[in-house]
Amino acid sequence: MKNINIDVKNVLATVSMDNINSFEAKADDALRMLHDGTGAGNDFLGWVNLPSTTDDALVDDIIKTANDMRANCEVVVAIGIGGSYLGAKAVIEALSDSFAAYKQDNGTTVLFAGQNIGEDYLYELTSYLKNKKYGIVVISKSGTTTEPAIAFRMLKEQLEAQIGKTEAAKRIVAITDAKRGALRQLATEEGYKTYVIADNVGGRFSVLTPVGLLPIAVAGFDIRKLVEGARKMEKATAQGVEDNMAMLYAKTRNALYAAGKKIEILVNYNPKLHYFAEWWKQLYGESEGKDHKGIFPAAVDNSTDLHSMGQWIQDGERTIFETVISVINQRHKAVIPTDEANLDGLNYIASRRVDEVNKMAELGTRIAHVDGGVPNIHITVDSLCEECLGELIYFFEKACGISGYILGVNPFNQPGVEAYKKNMFALLAKPGYEKETEAIRSRLS
Amino acid sequence: MKNINIDVKNVLATVSMDNINSFEAKADDALRMLHDGTGAGNDFLGWVNLPSTTDDALVDDIIKTANDMRANCEVVVAIGIGGSYLGAKAVIEALSDSFAAYKQDNGTTVLFAGQNIGEDYLYELTSYLKNKKYGIVVISKSGTTTEPAIAFRMLKEQLEAQIGKTEAAKRIVAITDAKRGALRQLATEEGYKTYVIADNVGGRFSVLTPVGLLPIAVAGFDIRKLVEGARKMEKATAQGVEDNMAMLYAKTRNALYAAGKKIEILVNYNPKLHYFAEWWKQLYGESEGKDHKGIFPAAVDNSTDLHSMGQWIQDGERTIFETVISVINQRHKAVIPTDEANLDGLNYIASRRVDEVNKMAELGTRIAHVDGGVPNIHITVDSLCEECLGELIYFFEKACGISGYILGVNPFNQPGVEAYKKNMFALLAKPGYEKETEAIRSRLS
Repeated sequence: MKNINIDVKNVLATVSMDNINSFEAKADDALRMLHDGTGAGNDFLGWVNLPSTTDDALVDDIIKTANDMRANCEVVVAIGIGGSYLGAKAVIEALSDSFAAYKQDNGTTVLFAGQNIGEDYLYELTSYLKNKKYGIVVISKSGTTTEPAIAFRMLKEQLEAQIGKTEAAKRIVAITDAKRGALRQLATEEGYKTYVIADNVGGRFSVLTPVGLLPIAVAGFDIRKLVEGARKMEKATAQGVEDNMAMLYAKTRNALYAAGKKIEILVNYNPKLHYFAEWWKQLYGESEGKDHKGIFPAAVDNSTDLHSMGQWIQDGERTIFETVISVINQRHKAVIPTDEANLDGLNYIASRRVDEVNKMAELGTRIAHVDGGVPNIHITVDSLCEECLGELIYFFEKACGISGYILGVNPFNQPGVEAYKKNMFALLAKPGYEKETEAIRSRLS
Repeated sequence: MKNINIDVKNVLATVSMDNINSFEAKADDALRMLHDGTGAGNDFLGWVNLPSTTDDALVDDIIKTANDMRANCEVVVAIGIGGSYLGAKAVIEALSDSFAAYKQDNGTTVLFAGQNIGEDYLYELTSYLKNKKYGIVVISKSGTTTEPAIAFRMLKEQLEAQIGKTEAAKRIVAITDAKRGALRQLATEEGYKTYVIADNVGGRFSVLTPVGLLPIAVAGFDIRKLVEGARKMEKATAQGVEDNMAMLYAKTRNALYAAGKKIEILVNYNPKLHYFAEWWKQLYGESEGKDHKGIFPAAVDNSTDLHSMGQWIQDGERTIFETVISVINQRHKAVIPTDEANLDGLNYIASRRVDEVNKMAELGTRIAHVDGGVPNIHITVDSLCEECLGELIYFFEKACGISGYILGVNPFNQPGVEAYKKNMFALLAKPGYEKETEAIRSRLS
C-alpha cells in the first residue's frame, strides 16, 4: 500500500534497538500531544489532520485557478520566503525535467522571487519579464515581510505598467490571512483572487495548503494525487504502533543525537531531490534548533558529493549520521552503450541501466559509511510521483513534530528568526524602531 | 589594489587575537612548507605557483578553442566530477545572469554531465541534445572514472550518430593526463584537441588549469582576468607577514575549531554564489576531513536561509561559526518603487536600492549572530567580476593549504573517497574485483 519504507538496521552498530526503543514512551506521548493538542505550540497543529480535512472542493478550485493562469501566462512568479517558497520549489523540482528551463516546451514556467534580496536577481528577473505574459502568486500572511513585499512591489508595478491595472488584477492571486493584514486589504481593494493561510499551520508545514498547492498546480502537476499521498501517510502514522515509521524515524534520530551524532546529512542519489533536502532542512532546523540544542541538518547530492563532502563523511569527525532517500523506480530508461574498443573498461556494465550503477554506488557507500563509523537510516520511495511525494512530505512533518517533542523543545515556534529582523529594521531606521536605531548606531560608531 | 579583504573582529568574543596568533608559528611553517615543498602531500603543490607560471600562450590557446566551440555549438557539455565540475560550475554561475537558462540569448550554453549517475538526468539530457549542435569537453585524468565515463560514452555515441564520427571528433575536447590513460589513448586515436591535467595539481585545486578555464571560456567569460586576479592574490599571500589574509583566515578558523566551533558555515547574500560555496565545501571538506578530524563545511544562501537554517544558527548548539562573503558592488541597479497607498509599509525604504536593504539584512544578521554566540569572519569582495573571482579562488586555496598543515593533516590526499568505489566495483562484479565481490555478496546475504 505505502510507497515509502524505512530501515534502521544500519544504525545498530552505533545505537541498539533497545536504545532506540528507550524513546518509545516519549514518542507515544509526543504522538498523543500532536493529536490531542496538549503539547507546546498547540496553536500550530493544523497540519496534523490537514490532508484528511482538506476539502476536495478547495483542491478543485485551486486547480481551476491554476488552469486559468496556465492559459493566460507564459510565466508565473511565486513570491514568498521560507515555507512560502521551499515546499513548492521542492515538489516542482522533484517532478520536473532536469532541463525544463532549457526545453521550455511544457507550458507555463513557474519562477520564484521574494526569497532573497538580491539586487541583480530582481533586476535580471524584471528584465526577463519585460513584454512577457506573466502572472503573480504572492504568498504572505501579513503582506509586510520585507523580502516578498519588495519583490511584489516591483513585479506588480511592472505588470500594471505592461498591461494596465485592471488586467493585472486578473493575473494576481494572493495567498494571505483570512481577514487581517496589508495583503488581505490590498487583495480586497484590487479584487484579486485569494486563498487563505490558516492561523494554525506554520510556514514550514504549509506545503499541502494553497501556499504550496497553487504554485505546484500552476507548474502542471497533479495536486490531487499529492494530497492523496499525504492522506495515506496521515492514516499510516496516526497510531502509536510498532510499524509507525514516523515514530521510528523520530526515535532513531533522537537516539543517535543522544549518542553524540550531532549532524544529520540527508542524502539523495537523484539530483531532483536537491530542493526537497532544502525543504527538509527548514523543517527540521527551524523546528529543533533552539534552546542551544538540536541536530544540525545538512544535505548532499550523490554521487556528485561523494567527490566533495565524501571524504569528510568517510573520515572526518565521527559526529554525523545520514538519512538516505533512495528512489526505487526512475521515470525514464537509459542504458549504458557497448563500445568495442572498451578503452574506458566500462563494458562490464554495458547494456545495463544507468540506475543499476547508481544503486550500487548507493549501497556501496552505505556499507562503506557503516564501516567508517557513520550510521545511516534508509528511506525508500517507490518513485518521484506526486503521490509518493505527498507521502514523503507528511512522513517528515509527522516525524518532525514527534522528534521535537522527544527533544523537549517547542517544534512549532521560531523565536530566533526575529533577531536579525529587529537589527535590520533598526539599521534601516524603520518607523517605530527609533530607539533601536539609536542603540545600534551608537554601537557601530 | 586587492579586491578582497578580511575582517575577524566579530570572532573576538569567542577567541582573542592572542589566541589566534598562537597559531602564528604553525602558519609560518605551513606557508614555508607550501613554498619549499617539504610538507605532506608535496607531490601536489603545483597549484601554489600556478597563476604566475601559467603561460599566456596556453590561455590564448584555450580562448581560441573556446571560440571555435562557441562558433560551432549551441550547447557544450562539460563532463567531469568533483574538482573537474565544481570549479567551472562555481565561476560560471557567479558570472551568469540568474535567468540565463530561460533567456538563452547569450551564445553557447554550457551544461554539465558526468557529475552524477542519475538515469533520468542522463535521459533528459540526451533527449534535449537530440538534433542540437553540441560539443563535449570531457575531463578525466584516467578516463575510467565511472560517472564521467558513463556520460561520455552516451554523449559521444549520440554525437557520432547525429553528425558522424569525423565531425564529432572536431567537437570533442579532452582534458586528461599528458601521456597515460584511456582518455589520452582515445584522444590520440580520434584526433581530439587535448589539454593536460598536470600530475601535481589535485582535482579540487584545478579550477585555474584548463579543467576550469576551458568550460568558463566556452561560457563566454574572460579567463585572462580570472588568471590575473589569481596572480595578484598569489603575490599578496606569498610572504609570512601580518597582512597575509590567507594566513589570517587559516589561523582564525583553527583557533575557532580548537575552541569547539566544529561547523563552519559559508554565508552569502547573493544567490549567484551558491555553487561557489559548493566548490569551497569540496576544497575544505576533502582537504581537512580526515584522521577523524576537521571542521564540517556547510553553506547557506541568505536572506533565503535566514527563513530556514536561520533559527538553528541563532539558537541551536553553540558549535558553529560563519564566514560571510559580502559582495560590495552589484552588477545592476534596481530601486524599490514608491507606492502611494503604502499598505505594506515599505515607503520608508522606497527610492533606495535593493542592495542597501540586503546589506542591512547582512549587517543586522552578523550582529545578531555575535550576540547569539556565533562568531563570524567577514570577507568582502569588490564585485562578482572575473578578476575578483580569481583572487577569491586563490585566497581560499592558499588558506586551505595553510589551514590543513596547521591542523596536522595532509591537505592534498583524499583516501576516504576510495571506500565507496571499492564496494561499488565489488557489487557490480567489475573484472579484477572477484574476491571483493564474493566477500560483499556473502556479507549481504
